[in-house]
Amino acid sequence: MDYHAISLREKLGLFTETWSPRVVAELNDYQVKLARIQGEFVWHRHEHTDELFLVLSGEMEILFRDGCVRLAEGDMYVVAKGIEHCPRASEEAQILIIEPRGVRNTGNTGGGRTADNDVWV
Amino acid sequence: MDYHAISLREKLGLFTETWSPRVVAELNDYQVKLARIQGEFVWHRHEHTDELFLVLSGEMEILFRDGCVRLAEGDMYVVAKGIEHCPRASEEAQILIIEPRGVRNTGNTGGGRTADNDVWV
Repeated sequence: MDYHAISLREKLGLFTETWSPRVVAELNDYQVKLARIQGEFVWHRHEHTDELFLVLSGEMEILFRDGCVRLAEGDMYVVAKGIEHCPRASEEAQILIIEPRGVRNTGNTGGGRTADNDVWV
Repeated sequence: MDYHAISLREKLGLFTETWSPRVVAELNDYQVKLARIQGEFVWHRHEHTDELFLVLSGEMEILFRDGCVRLAEGDMYVVAKGIEHCPRASEEAQILIIEPRGVRNTGNTGGGRTADNDVWV
């Protein structure tokens, strides 16, 4: 049988839109997503789940109401469920996100920055 | 409040043992682990969960009974639950693994290569 590696670099080369996560794999009921981000997102929280961020290239910050964390390439952070946060990147960054299937990118906030779910690349 | 990024490179510098996964973060009831691997592991399967592999440096192969997948740096693969597999790396590779908390590294096989769980770094 043929088994194929998932090249994160190759997958990232297949889209250019920012703040538009693409699913590359599933792990039980979790999804692994890639995203390009630039600028500031919207403040939001996910009531029922933690959210993992891993920076593949560039740098990002995750703002919290009482602080922030700066992630360089190869850095990871897990935002705990229920915690308001706002991702931001001054230059374009490429990141990997893991969270349960069906989670809305804008969490409790919704609105125009809400991306379609289950868009695979 | 202070928020701290998890540097995968820094964490990998804190241990040298191969086939001895170290937990660096939790995502709900999942754990993110780092491992150094070299040589061939044991054939095993996880009856109740998929398992995610991401190569951070070096190269690895995951052998299956009817094929194999070769992962270079930046490549990912999810081994489906119940599928017998055997990880292997001819030179030392550094990898990230994600799976539910409490999963035994040797799966159904057990034996001397079984690592302690919940060893954080």
